Amino acid sequence: MVGNTFGKAFAITTWGESHGPAIGVVIDGCPCGLELTEADIQHELDRRRPGQSDVSTPRKEDDKVEILSGIFQGKTTGTPISLLICNKDADSSKYESIKDTPRPGHADYTYFMKYGFRDYRGGGRASARETAARVAGGAIAKKVLVAHGIEILAHVVELGSVKASPVTIDEIRTNVESNPVRCADLKAAEIMLGKVKQARSNNDSIGGIVEIIALGVPPGFGEPVFDKLDADIARALMGIGAVKGVEIGAGFVCAGLTGSQMNDPFEINNGKVVCTSNNAGGILGGISSGENIICRIAVKPTPSIARPQKTVDLLSLSDTEIVIQGRHDPTIPPRIIPVAEAMMALVLADHLIRADHLS
Amino acid sequence: MVGNTFGKAFAITTWGESHGPAIGVVIDGCPCGLELTEADIQHELDRRRPGQSDVSTPRKEDDKVEILSGIFQGKTTGTPISLLICNKDADSSKYESIKDTPRPGHADYTYFMKYGFRDYRGGGRASARETAARVAGGAIAKKVLVAHGIEILAHVVELGSVKASPVTIDEIRTNVESNPVRCADLKAAEIMLGKVKQARSNNDSIGGIVEIIALGVPPGFGEPVFDKLDADIARALMGIGAVKGVEIGAGFVCAGLTGSQMNDPFEINNGKVVCTSNNAGGILGGISSGENIICRIAVKPTPSIARPQKTVDLLSLSDTEIVIQGRHDPTIPPRIIPVAEAMMALVLADHLIRADHLS
Amino acid sequence: MVGNTFGKAFAITTWGESHGPAIGVVIDGCPCGLELTEADIQHELDRRRPGQSDVSTPRKEDDKVEILSGIFQGKTTGTPISLLICNKDADSSKYESIKDTPRPGHADYTYFMKYGFRDYRGGGRASARETAARVAGGAIAKKVLVAHGIEILAHVVELGSVKASPVTIDEIRTNVESNPVRCADLKAAEIMLGKVKQARSNNDSIGGIVEIIALGVPPGFGEPVFDKLDADIARALMGIGAVKGVEIGAGFVCAGLTGSQMNDPFEINNGKVVCTSNNAGGILGGISSGENIICRIAVKPTPSIARPQKTVDLLSLSDTEIVIQGRHDPTIPPRIIPVAEAMMALVLADHLIRADHLS
Amino acid sequence: MVGNTFGKAFAITTWGESHGPAIGVVIDGCPCGLELTEADIQHELDRRRPGQSDVSTPRKEDDKVEILSGIFQGKTTGTPISLLICNKDADSSKYESIKDTPRPGHADYTYFMKYGFRDYRGGGRASARETAARVAGGAIAKKVLVAHGIEILAHVVELGSVKASPVTIDEIRTNVESNPVRCADLKAAEIMLGKVKQARSNNDSIGGIVEIIALGVPPGFGEPVFDKLDADIARALMGIGAVKGVEIGAGFVCAGLTGSQMNDPFEINNGKVVCTSNNAGGILGGISSGENIICRIAVKPTPSIARPQKTVDLLSLSDTEIVIQGRHDPTIPPRIIPVAEAMMALVLADHLIRADHLS
Repeated sequence: MVGNTFGKAFAITTWGESHGPAIGVVIDGCPCGLELTEADIQHELDRRRPGQSDVSTPRKEDDKVEILSGIFQGKTTGTPISLLICNKDADSSKYESIKDTPRPGHADYTYFMKYGFRDYRGGGRASARETAARVAGGAIAKKVLVAHGIEILAHVVELGSVKASPVTIDEIRTNVESNPVRCADLKAAEIMLGKVKQARSNNDSIGGIVEIIALGVPPGFGEPVFDKLDADIARALMGIGAVKGVEIGAGFVCAGLTGSQMNDPFEINNGKVVCTSNNAGGILGGISSGENIICRIAVKPTPSIARPQKTVDLLSLSDTEIVIQGRHDPTIPPRIIPVAEAMMALVLADHLIRADHLS
Repeated sequence: MVGNTFGKAFAITTWGESHGPAIGVVIDGCPCGLELTEADIQHELDRRRPGQSDVSTPRKEDDKVEILSGIFQGKTTGTPISLLICNKDADSSKYESIKDTPRPGHADYTYFMKYGFRDYRGGGRASARETAARVAGGAIAKKVLVAHGIEILAHVVELGSVKASPVTIDEIRTNVESNPVRCADLKAAEIMLGKVKQARSNNDSIGGIVEIIALGVPPGFGEPVFDKLDADIARALMGIGAVKGVEIGAGFVCAGLTGSQMNDPFEINNGKVVCTSNNAGGILGGISSGENIICRIAVKPTPSIARPQKTVDLLSLSDTEIVIQGRHDPTIPPRIIPVAEAMMALVLADHLIRADHLS
Repeated sequence: MVGNTFGKAFAITTWGESHGPAIGVVIDGCPCGLELTEADIQHELDRRRPGQSDVSTPRKEDDKVEILSGIFQGKTTGTPISLLICNKDADSSKYESIKDTPRPGHADYTYFMKYGFRDYRGGGRASARETAARVAGGAIAKKVLVAHGIEILAHVVELGSVKASPVTIDEIRTNVESNPVRCADLKAAEIMLGKVKQARSNNDSIGGIVEIIALGVPPGFGEPVFDKLDADIARALMGIGAVKGVEIGAGFVCAGLTGSQMNDPFEINNGKVVCTSNNAGGILGGISSGENIICRIAVKPTPSIARPQKTVDLLSLSDTEIVIQGRHDPTIPPRIIPVAEAMMALVLADHLIRADHLS
Repeated sequence: MVGNTFGKAFAITTWGESHGPAIGVVIDGCPCGLELTEADIQHELDRRRPGQSDVSTPRKEDDKVEILSGIFQGKTTGTPISLLICNKDADSSKYESIKDTPRPGHADYTYFMKYGFRDYRGGGRASARETAARVAGGAIAKKVLVAHGIEILAHVVELGSVKASPVTIDEIRTNVESNPVRCADLKAAEIMLGKVKQARSNNDSIGGIVEIIALGVPPGFGEPVFDKLDADIARALMGIGAVKGVEIGAGFVCAGLTGSQMNDPFEINNGKVVCTSNNAGGILGGISSGENIICRIAVKPTPSIARPQKTVDLLSLSDTEIVIQGRHDPTIPPRIIPVAEAMMALVLADHLIRADHLS
């Protein structure tokens, strides 16, 4: 059954496999009259594309986006926007030999069990390459949000057990794109980078934690009791491959707090209601409060590692070993950042439009 | 805009406020021919209802459910099932005086900002009472799942910073309902109970962590790339009031692991493909693998506490203090258990039907 | 699978069987702050309820509606509105004997084939009684529309082959409720009434055509290319039991016109763009144009007739005859009017909210 | 808000403007393992494409389709199928001069009022060219249906007031593609063809009626009370540009019948339940009965006609005249046939999957 459309008022439908001719996305519900060029989208794709640094896969894809519809004279028309990204550097040769031996930590086995038949080249639809379409769609969501004063940031806060120190919003804005691990604490970034290189030289990979922040979200986004803003954010972020946990505000730390510690007191500041702390992460009762929205995701280590692993042969139903060749990132958090931002942007753009009839 | 329907193939629509005449749920998409009585639903409601023990609110509601449609001669007919639960012990007197002073940690402020106008009695729609409707709907989902060999369990694994030791599935089955904190480690349960009483005597509250497990889920549930099983579970659980984090399998721990530690090796066991570990928590690529599905949620301490808190007066836009009277649980995790089970059941029943066309 | 929710932004979910304890509807997405009382809804239900005149079934139901949620201090709160209507005069005795012999023209056979098991009392879920829930939901939609200057009218334009002469909007407003066949041409109404009585005395029934008009709909309702306003109206009206055709504007007559006859010329009138004819029925390209929206539905004769009909015994798979007893309307168009108005109102309220972000 | 996705279990999302670089469709929910090639889709597109005969527009588009995803080794994988059709012969020169003078009978005015800003070249998104994407998606739906023994046919039954005589299913199969008006009554076809030529030489256009038939649909498709099969068919067909009416079975004729004439008696034939007439058009209570599904649509005359028409200037808000140049079909019914078949196929494929959990 269907599962490739995300959003109710501002929606994306993505398609494409890692080693097929192309991948893409259709954006439906984008307001009309928004200025939009391929450069707006390309900027975000360039942040995600492979081969940017030596902590990412050497696969070379320029991920050049083409707008095929929905734009006229440089502006959106309110009709669906179709974006196309051709695959250019697919190398399927490494996958033929492992098509019947599912890679541990990957979706090979579950796709086989669900569909019976699957495109095993480069992980097919389950490849992280699929996220380029999300990033392209998210770039348009970001344009919608920026027009309403909403900004989205993300940064690596932990990598290979190295934790970043607390940073300011300005440090995130300034530092994230200045280092290959996308950590705003530059000292920690250096240590993290060492961990990545060490993992690679060990034929292994490492996990980490990414924080996503939305600034400028007004009170009122979110539709209780099931389309709550935090619920939709959790769905959006948990649905990114490699994410195994999502928390908002104090997150799992709240389990050890008391109510008097956790509750964010209200006060009047310059005639406006504000909170003096933000353990709630900007969402109360599933509705944005006007405070910054703050989430963190746990990102597992890249499952593709260049050392032998135990697996099975699905044809003979016997135990065997696999050595994955292909080209892979030794760690995912730095490259997941534009994807996580995109998913956050898509949720917020959707709720912006859903909440708009109240104004 | 709409937001009170959950599910695409098996769906519930809930309604009702804490202090209105009743709350209820309509279940649409339930397969026909399933034996169903009010007792099946009442059993789950009794696990959730207030006043069960001295760790829960003293509000007295028998939460008696009535089936109004969709059942004929004791069996479902495939038409919508409407369930009604009358409110009997609502006491709105405590809320009149605090209607303009939002309670910290509650949805008062955000509902006010979103809707402009709100039913402030007992939290209105944002009350935890709303979850009774989810539990009633979930009871029917559980019946559907049991008919397919799927069982759902949940237990408290941390409360007030007390962590339970690892337990077996059988210990969960046996012990959870035997103690008021619903912890399967009975020694930890006793210490947790002390923490709850201490919190109450301090006019405070405590948070905790609940683990939810689904047994017997076959491979193939989940519809990538947006209706992945883990994404839908995250949405379902994060959308319960008081939940601030959701993790699956190794969860946030995965951030500190290497790929060689995290990946679950496959092997053949009795002619079947199994994993020798379950860091994935039973889901790979957003699709169930046949292993147990394991999630944990972070539950914040009850925001209603009987000590003065800083807040604001929304009419005069001035700082003030609030003392919440009403009747409240000193801790939420024990009572969230049937709700979390219900949400898991609803997700699985929905995906059971969505996946069924493959069989 | 699900099928009992209608609308994307303003949605109703209905439930209930003809001879169960009650029927009802949950309205989700209704804007907050709207004044709403049970009397607003009762008024519409009274127009639909049985036993109003001697051209309708003698079943006595007062169809008293109760509001169970979503209203506080006489106004909507933006949360779901649950409405309950108890069944009081169900007489199931006549259905036991015909449970295995499907009534021609009814849903007995198809429900049996789809669900295997069905509530055969009074047609169960397939009874026209189900439409009371639509009317109740539609009453709220009408309130939303009235607040935006939109009015919905309907009248019988043909009954038992008697065609009404053209009437003015004011004649519809004045005359429809003044006669039992709800025809605004009072002369035709009298002849139609004779046809109804004749049909009943023949143990037969007659069909007819109803026209539904929406006044004051601004340009811009409708979301091409699949959620066009005319497409959604067609779905809404064709989904009422007994409706076998829907046409908009010139409708089937357009098949015999030329383009120069069919096209509605634009002109400026008092500084506004208007059309000098309305063959389009107020919708161009699936979007409202600002002209009156005009539709007609073909309503089949009541399938329940008091004369022997050929049918089969589903148990023995043999031919047999059926004589339907029960209590039935000799003609449906007069009573379908509030239902058709309700469905039109639901479509327009949904599209009002969907289009509202443009303003 | 969104509006370009059709279907709940088997869904298409279309995109593209008449004079943009391309149009296309994403099909989500297609079962895996289905053999599918571009030729399967091309065959249907060739039936729809312009320039096939002298009763269609001279615009030359080969409408060559490319499959960009979802197929591996010649079979569907269960992932989204993306289809691309490039626009090659767009000639926008004729549209610049009429961009502020809405063409009567077209969507120019309503798009302008809804979106404020529109792609006026060739009608943009509102062009009939958009239907190529539907036909491409419908071709895949047809493959799914054929695998379940379901066949869809359509033929012109009235054109320019010329009515075809009743024909057999075999005559439809044999004759429709043998003549440019796609009428199975070959004598009528010839007269119709004369009417088309006459209309063109008059700088005018003519309307007609098309009948669509689905054979082999088993009982049980359709999800009451809102996703009834007839409701969804009505939505699907009314949402095709130029369609102003939809009827099922006896359709508008039923308004003049009595119940005893309209009801289709059941009988046992070769051990199976059948109806001895089919006034219901194969659908009872919104669920397929196993009889042939029969619908008819009223198709208005082409609004683009080569004679002066009254319209307005939207900039100066003054009356003016328009003469449409461009290239246009003098009649739509022959070319709407593959589109109507596609929409019917999409509805049935969706309901096939939705009903499948019953089996």
